[in-house]
Amino acid sequence: MKSSIFNCNVLELPKIHNRAGNITPVHGNNDIPFPVERVYYLYDVPGGETRGGHAHKKLHQLIVAASGSFDVTLDDGKNKKTVTLNRPNYGLYVCPGIWRDLSNFSSGAVLLVLASAKYDENDYLREYKSFLEFVNGL
Amino acid sequence: MKSSIFNCNVLELPKIHNRAGNITPVHGNNDIPFPVERVYYLYDVPGGETRGGHAHKKLHQLIVAASGSFDVTLDDGKNKKTVTLNRPNYGLYVCPGIWRDLSNFSSGAVLLVLASAKYDENDYLREYKSFLEFVNGL
Repeated sequence: MKSSIFNCNVLELPKIHNRAGNITPVHGNNDIPFPVERVYYLYDVPGGETRGGHAHKKLHQLIVAASGSFDVTLDDGKNKKTVTLNRPNYGLYVCPGIWRDLSNFSSGAVLLVLASAKYDENDYLREYKSFLEFVNGL
Repeated sequence: MKSSIFNCNVLELPKIHNRAGNITPVHGNNDIPFPVERVYYLYDVPGGETRGGHAHKKLHQLIVAASGSFDVTLDDGKNKKTVTLNRPNYGLYVCPGIWRDLSNFSSGAVLLVLASAKYDENDYLREYKSFLEFVNGL
């Protein structure tokens, strides 16, 4: 299947309300379309910062603003779109073969990622030119 | 195995430094002693709030302060200890059969939990009396 930004959507996640705080649970293969094999989170990002992009060949991800806000720009080699994430109960599903740039971080933002596979350096496309070759070869 | 708070320790997680923010990856069965089947996070907790406790019969958890800080009090029916979490690259491993109370939340804190199994209401011990009966029967 050709990778397309139109397959990457913001998903509304469950939110369990409580006087003493809200909980959002995420079950792999249930609330999101893949099993969770790896979790990572990005923090201590200076306000307004931008992080250089990359893409994945096979990895599926869900990106959540667990705290604060930031923008994610998705690029499938033909089309681009920018999504602002700023609520913990919304997550951006990113399918494989999509270049993503992160920008406009609020101070104190926490970017939480749930990923479909363990870390594999061979799955990364770190150069935009290699990314274009990869998606055009699909 | 008898549940004991002395089996529940703060684990130092990986931290990948970068000018534009730090990343902490957590691989189930690798950085932590169980596979990650469920992720949830608690947010919008009013500063200074306390959340009523519970225990699990079989669930293993890692509790992380992804943002802000809070205290976790662990109780195995005989001993208690309180741990303050306030760094995203440290996580508190909580083994099964431990009563936990959460307190002293900073405003804007985000409590991230990685759990070893999907949600199962039968695994919860929500009454302290039932918890004591459970651990004393082990």
